[in-house]
Amino acid sequence: MQRLALARSCSFLLRSCSYQQGRYLATVPVEDVIFPSKSDFPSRHIGPRKTDVVAMLDTLGYKSLAELTEKAVPQSIQLKRELNLDKPLNEHELISRIRDIAQKNQLWRSYIGMGYHNCHVPHTIVRNIFENPGWTTQYTPYQPEIAQGRLESLLNYQTLVSELTGLDVANASLLDEGTAAAEAMCLATRHNKRRKLYMTNKVHPQTLSVVQTRAEALELDIIVGPIQDADLASRELAAILLQYPDTYGDVKDFEDIAALAKKNGTLVVVATDLLALTLLRPPAEFGADIAIGTSQRLGVPLGYGGPHAGFFACKQKLVRLMPGRMIGVTRDMDGNDAYRLALQTREQHIRRDKATSNICTAQALLANMSAMYAIYHGPEGLKAIANRIHHFTLTLQTGLQGAGHQVLNKNFFDTLHVRLSGELSLEDLKERATHKRINLRYFPDDSVGVALDETVGVQDVNDLLWIFKGQSVEQLLARKDVLKNSIENSKFLRTSPYLQHPIFNMYHSESRMVRYMKKLENKDISLVHSMIPLGSCTMKLNSTTEMMPCSFRHFTDIHPFAPVEQARGFHQMFEDLERDLCEITGYDNISFQPNSGAQGEYAGLRAIRSYHEHRREGHRNICLIPISAHGTNPASAQMAGMKVEPIRILSDGSIDMAHLRDKAEEHARELSCLMITYPSTMGVFEETVADICTLIHKHGGQVYLDGANMNAQVGLCRPGDYGSDVSHLNLHKTFCIPHGGGGPGMGPIGVKAHLAPYLPGHPVISPLDSEEHSFGVVSAAPFGSSAILPISWSYIKLMGSRGLKRATQVAILNANYMSKRLEQHYKTLYKSPTSGLVAHEFILDIRDLKKSANIEAVDVAKRLMDYGFHAPTMSWPVAGTLMIEPTESEDKEELDRFCDAMISIRAEIEEIEAGRMDKSVNPLKMAPHTQAQVISDKWDRPYTREQAAFPALFVKPDAKIWPTVGRIDDAYGDKHLVCTCPPILPDI
Amino acid sequence: MQRLALARSCSFLLRSCSYQQGRYLATVPVEDVIFPSKSDFPSRHIGPRKTDVVAMLDTLGYKSLAELTEKAVPQSIQLKRELNLDKPLNEHELISRIRDIAQKNQLWRSYIGMGYHNCHVPHTIVRNIFENPGWTTQYTPYQPEIAQGRLESLLNYQTLVSELTGLDVANASLLDEGTAAAEAMCLATRHNKRRKLYMTNKVHPQTLSVVQTRAEALELDIIVGPIQDADLASRELAAILLQYPDTYGDVKDFEDIAALAKKNGTLVVVATDLLALTLLRPPAEFGADIAIGTSQRLGVPLGYGGPHAGFFACKQKLVRLMPGRMIGVTRDMDGNDAYRLALQTREQHIRRDKATSNICTAQALLANMSAMYAIYHGPEGLKAIANRIHHFTLTLQTGLQGAGHQVLNKNFFDTLHVRLSGELSLEDLKERATHKRINLRYFPDDSVGVALDETVGVQDVNDLLWIFKGQSVEQLLARKDVLKNSIENSKFLRTSPYLQHPIFNMYHSESRMVRYMKKLENKDISLVHSMIPLGSCTMKLNSTTEMMPCSFRHFTDIHPFAPVEQARGFHQMFEDLERDLCEITGYDNISFQPNSGAQGEYAGLRAIRSYHEHRREGHRNICLIPISAHGTNPASAQMAGMKVEPIRILSDGSIDMAHLRDKAEEHARELSCLMITYPSTMGVFEETVADICTLIHKHGGQVYLDGANMNAQVGLCRPGDYGSDVSHLNLHKTFCIPHGGGGPGMGPIGVKAHLAPYLPGHPVISPLDSEEHSFGVVSAAPFGSSAILPISWSYIKLMGSRGLKRATQVAILNANYMSKRLEQHYKTLYKSPTSGLVAHEFILDIRDLKKSANIEAVDVAKRLMDYGFHAPTMSWPVAGTLMIEPTESEDKEELDRFCDAMISIRAEIEEIEAGRMDKSVNPLKMAPHTQAQVISDKWDRPYTREQAAFPALFVKPDAKIWPTVGRIDDAYGDKHLVCTCPPILPDI
Repeated sequence: MQRLALARSCSFLLRSCSYQQGRYLATVPVEDVIFPSKSDFPSRHIGPRKTDVVAMLDTLGYKSLAELTEKAVPQSIQLKRELNLDKPLNEHELISRIRDIAQKNQLWRSYIGMGYHNCHVPHTIVRNIFENPGWTTQYTPYQPEIAQGRLESLLNYQTLVSELTGLDVANASLLDEGTAAAEAMCLATRHNKRRKLYMTNKVHPQTLSVVQTRAEALELDIIVGPIQDADLASRELAAILLQYPDTYGDVKDFEDIAALAKKNGTLVVVATDLLALTLLRPPAEFGADIAIGTSQRLGVPLGYGGPHAGFFACKQKLVRLMPGRMIGVTRDMDGNDAYRLALQTREQHIRRDKATSNICTAQALLANMSAMYAIYHGPEGLKAIANRIHHFTLTLQTGLQGAGHQVLNKNFFDTLHVRLSGELSLEDLKERATHKRINLRYFPDDSVGVALDETVGVQDVNDLLWIFKGQSVEQLLARKDVLKNSIENSKFLRTSPYLQHPIFNMYHSESRMVRYMKKLENKDISLVHSMIPLGSCTMKLNSTTEMMPCSFRHFTDIHPFAPVEQARGFHQMFEDLERDLCEITGYDNISFQPNSGAQGEYAGLRAIRSYHEHRREGHRNICLIPISAHGTNPASAQMAGMKVEPIRILSDGSIDMAHLRDKAEEHARELSCLMITYPSTMGVFEETVADICTLIHKHGGQVYLDGANMNAQVGLCRPGDYGSDVSHLNLHKTFCIPHGGGGPGMGPIGVKAHLAPYLPGHPVISPLDSEEHSFGVVSAAPFGSSAILPISWSYIKLMGSRGLKRATQVAILNANYMSKRLEQHYKTLYKSPTSGLVAHEFILDIRDLKKSANIEAVDVAKRLMDYGFHAPTMSWPVAGTLMIEPTESEDKEELDRFCDAMISIRAEIEEIEAGRMDKSVNPLKMAPHTQAQVISDKWDRPYTREQAAFPALFVKPDAKIWPTVGRIDDAYGDKHLVCTCPPILPDI
Repeated sequence: MQRLALARSCSFLLRSCSYQQGRYLATVPVEDVIFPSKSDFPSRHIGPRKTDVVAMLDTLGYKSLAELTEKAVPQSIQLKRELNLDKPLNEHELISRIRDIAQKNQLWRSYIGMGYHNCHVPHTIVRNIFENPGWTTQYTPYQPEIAQGRLESLLNYQTLVSELTGLDVANASLLDEGTAAAEAMCLATRHNKRRKLYMTNKVHPQTLSVVQTRAEALELDIIVGPIQDADLASRELAAILLQYPDTYGDVKDFEDIAALAKKNGTLVVVATDLLALTLLRPPAEFGADIAIGTSQRLGVPLGYGGPHAGFFACKQKLVRLMPGRMIGVTRDMDGNDAYRLALQTREQHIRRDKATSNICTAQALLANMSAMYAIYHGPEGLKAIANRIHHFTLTLQTGLQGAGHQVLNKNFFDTLHVRLSGELSLEDLKERATHKRINLRYFPDDSVGVALDETVGVQDVNDLLWIFKGQSVEQLLARKDVLKNSIENSKFLRTSPYLQHPIFNMYHSESRMVRYMKKLENKDISLVHSMIPLGSCTMKLNSTTEMMPCSFRHFTDIHPFAPVEQARGFHQMFEDLERDLCEITGYDNISFQPNSGAQGEYAGLRAIRSYHEHRREGHRNICLIPISAHGTNPASAQMAGMKVEPIRILSDGSIDMAHLRDKAEEHARELSCLMITYPSTMGVFEETVADICTLIHKHGGQVYLDGANMNAQVGLCRPGDYGSDVSHLNLHKTFCIPHGGGGPGMGPIGVKAHLAPYLPGHPVISPLDSEEHSFGVVSAAPFGSSAILPISWSYIKLMGSRGLKRATQVAILNANYMSKRLEQHYKTLYKSPTSGLVAHEFILDIRDLKKSANIEAVDVAKRLMDYGFHAPTMSWPVAGTLMIEPTESEDKEELDRFCDAMISIRAEIEEIEAGRMDKSVNPLKMAPHTQAQVISDKWDRPYTREQAAFPALFVKPDAKIWPTVGRIDDAYGDKHLVCTCPPILPDI
């Protein structure tokens, strides 16, 4: 901004007083004055123009942003220097720089498998979903009336998973296969109250590690071994975990084992592969209760490990224990079918430490891509793809055997486990593979794994055959028996149909496919329409420039277990980003493994636990959490094996210091840590934060600072400076990763040096210098959702230290400006008692309206849709309130428009209060209003159609955003749970 | 399709009769059977599924597509073999192949200038407009009620051009700077009826060539020389053409010359540079009547010459003579402001050979990008960019002079004309430039041109200074006088404001910018919503895969006048595409220079003319054109200096052979050619086409076959085989270039070998082996809009010969199926008398309804909008009818939906006929219906709101496409012409 200001005044200066070099050299390089940078990203990212900022500051009675934020942020924690970051790049320099970095990654063909397979993402899905802000910038569909598009798509995803696995219900994605397995095992322990688990030793190593790590903290007893050794008769096993096909590629018959498990009350969990299930008998048919895995290979790039969608399906009887978000069918107030998030009462934001899981962020965007991939190909297309891969694998098997190698797995889909013949040494093989730029899986016992995928062609198989010194495909096809070992000729052949629903059978031309994707997109509100002022969720600009590198094939096409030297570009980017995030937070190290905020919390708490254990204070297991904390906090603490002690808050929303002091003292011996959010979830910079940290440290505890509100701190204060030991950073909030309609997110954690040895490790590619003290593994991929890290990397490089600081300042300005503009109409629940300011968000208290007008938060939220807005956060952290976070990306005009809507709604409420409008039939209770309602010939409401649909001058018929269903009936849906596509034609 | 069919049956076959290799080897390679290609592009491109095709054929009484098309296409002209094209690639192979080709282009920095300057296209505009099918697949906005988005954007473009040039009005783009200059000169001759023109010799060489070529055919007298030599006093000059800054970079004062011209009735045309005009006094202020140029450097990539938007602005008094499309403000039936194409009565589709120009396709998409670029940067941003470039140029000038070189132009914006000092030879300079991979402009007299652009940074200028052995920027800045020669210190400084309208001053944050682009997008119907059944316009699928290469920087970032060896990728692609198009059409050579269909016609006719001249038959100047021809045909013939003789048609729509024979005989001596469209514009395969060609040849004439209807012929018959000598190919119809809301298009011409020597040449980079016989130059760039040719290249490579043929067959099937389904309700005007079939399109005759129900074509067209459809072609080629072309990309369900809408409308008309509905207030006459109308509290129509808005079951409230204004009042707009942004806030 500084530079742009100079640029604009430059020509005037040059004209009026000629070229006064010396005068400007003091502050800005002369070339910046006479060649002003034409592209100033911070001014694109930050909404309000300079004149707006002045006007808004004026409204608040401040002269400058500096003055405002010096008042807002407690003196004691203010950062008194500029962040030490690279000089910012403009958008075109940025792309050039990141392209160079990307190209340090090498694009080898990876036939490593292990749950990650290259695939062809249909280009029309890439462009119209993955690269389309209409899809990427949507929020989680908590407001279903303006989210029917992605809810339909996620329901398609559930149907896909449910039908391929054969199980009754599936959720709308988990983070990855490893965590899905861990969730399944934990579900089993909740279901049958047993605490012993048995895992096959033929599961992917990362799945094993994630489950073991999770079990350890919960003190579950995990046994790993050959599945036939599981002592099912003991009736002590909560669950067994099988893999089908297993990590070696073997397809085994588990029917007897499953029957035995069932008889003994043990749940059967099967890790599986959706594409294989188009050919193979599905897990449900041989007795699985739960199936888990990843849908990556269904149309999502490898991305060096993520993001992609983990899946989870189970029998109907387990549905209320199922973790994660689930889409269900319900009806709206007019009785029309409608979709919405079902059974939310299972979730952590309601159930806290009693929740089924701490999972919050899902992988909605990637689940949508997989669903669209299945719709694009249809059941026959998917089967053709699977058959092609399988036939290539059979051909390869024939060739390998012909060359004298031993193929150890008899039945397989796409993966061969090979013992080399004496004729070919492992070294030779590796050299030949290197020559072809092909990665294989090398087992410790010198056997070799080869997993084929959708992208494989004849040339690729020939290259593989060459590597193994086998005959060529052409030669092998001359034999008659290439397919004799096929699934089709085995008892594993799937005979049950799948994906017969019209949705998977009507969009096979590209024209139809594009129209379907666009139709769904246009049902949903996203950031391309208007601000989404979600308290605690920081829906800021996700700029195109930041998103572009995510499409670079040098980022998308790398297998997570490719040798590190092929991923130099990724590692350079990780190192850069770690350095920058450390500088921003004051921490010493970052782990990129946690692929959501909740995962970050869990990982941070586990690191704290390991730290204590390593100091022989393993008994420390009390976690203090203010009752105002996000529900994920206690849920994570519970998962980390800690005991949660709630800390009271005062009537002004701040932490009850006396209570905290008492509790810290009371539990001094067992104190593990405090979890705290800063600025507080009430939207206030508490003055006491540094004291709190000191207090906890005094009692031997560690401080976990929830990074959800980092957007109020960047450049102004650093958790690492004022006493926090560890934080997760929601890169999908503060650092510009778009919400994708409910994921992907990224929750890397920053730690002070003393915690660094305990960060997450990985059994395949270690992210640590030493795994010695690592507490374990939290995600399937070593660096979490690596492929979206370029977004945050780019944001920081584009903004630079001044841009980032200004962004924070404007975020605070925007929130305070809105609070001020609304103060005559709504009460801001909490402000700092010292400064009288809020932080970057604020809570509007509307609880009084219940009594005066029968109006609740939900009514205001739904009415906002009629004005074209997504509702703020509803009833959190305080029931019956609305929490608004505008972010720095919204300009004054948009803030004013939103405030005008809120004020107009307040006036509508006054009509009710004054008795001029009915208490139950009024524009708020009936909101949101659909086209069907207001265009109906039978309008009988005590207000006009125009009042309903165009309640303010700025809501114009030519750009109206319509809810596509009326007010949702949540209770009905939870009572009549339907979680797959309803059996009707969805569209004619 | 063949292969997919096999893929689907394969697993069945393998199961039932094991692996029967021999059986399939006969027709398909065995690997295609056991490894079926999973991606079959033809089945994505072609809408109807196999079962649909069977059902549709059944409706028509045919057993196979082959049977249908053998009946439809006259036996005598059928191609009896398969096209000889490469084996088709799948979509992923295609991208890999075209990427390799693109990378044969070398990305040097080009400071050549000559009207082409590199620029930074804002990424958010690339992604949200250029790469967004919501924008690219729109049709020309002839139906304004569902096109207000792009109409607003094009009006912004007109405002931009008008304000920067200072002139009263501008059009919504021409093809390029060269043709804009030619149009300006022709306008002048129409305006003052003089036939002599004077051009400065300092104009870009390609502009000079295009104007000279155009003048030659019209027998205008062009004098080229120093502008001071123009004999204005003679009062014989229609116009003078100046360039400002000129091709050498010079900025000259033309005020006195312009005044003298004005005094003597001569128009002053100024070729200029919009970016320079942010600093320089605009042409209107020194007396220009017309300003022309290109807006490429405002946010459109170089693209090896195009596409980008040429601009044209003029004084109000000339507006009714202005060529090209123009957006105007008018009002809708409710009196609301609305935009639409203004003064269409000037255009060729109405005025035929009396039109102001043959121009039809514009460059809408590129004009939109430039308009958005201006909105993104705003006046201050544009000025900052210009100042930065200018300051770099001043610095460079200082450095060059310091190194002893002579800078020949005293006043400049961004371009220096340099005479080297004796110290540095031209060879040395070239070598040093090559070392830095920099292209400069080398003049024949060994002087050198350097033109800087927006992308230039300090390092680039330092590299330039190094090449010229000058001091570095840092050293030069130490001097105090770098800016002394600036425009700011000269009399050329612009003092008048520009772009003060809010539209250019409110969308500077990316969030706002994205929302503005999305808001406009969502007002318009495009192919992402529903079929656009435009007769003669072939709105087929524009697949993502075809579009992707257009974003490759190795295609976008090449200067058209870069040395050919840097453009090897482009040339390989041209050669490939030429070979394929020749095979498809039966021609021997292709010229890619014409960048629209109209340009193609003009170029083809000029080649014919040259051919005759070369054979000493230059007197042949009669062009026979059936009266059913598109208006562009006669307009082009007139421009090519030919005399048009209309040929009558019979009552069945076919050419009156007797009349043709008479005319051909009557004019045998002067017969130049016949222009014919095939299949006819009536949608019929005429049996006589081969005879017609023979007849014309017999009389010494040539046959120009308009390629607009190639989509009915590809793979079935070839114009080159049955007697045509030359055709243009609308690549934006048959070969998948999207319409872009009214351009870009491409109109390359195919010719038989005898015409090849006469094809267009170019003064800078020749597309010919020899320029000796070339008739001249039709476009500014040697290969037209090179950057979109990868689309057509990709289409052919993806489809292969069988795919292309099947596409044609299905296009014919679709048209006949619709005609059949509608036959009980509407009469298809013309069918083949022999086969009883239509070709790929058909005309519905609704003229009778005028009498029976007061209903005209326009009423049906507007009512279709309420059903969610774009209207078919209206009143062309027969007044009062609708012409429907479904294309092969629409599937049966969509065709049925459209037919259902038409049938439903017919039922509505019956209500009127039966007197049950009012003749003037009914759903058709009042259509289209807006939200404001049907949600109004004051609904007083004799039909319901629901009838108005949801007239069929398939028009659902949750996916309704709304017209954003009511029926447009065209007459009002033409009477009260307003062609710049109306002086109100467009959006709050």
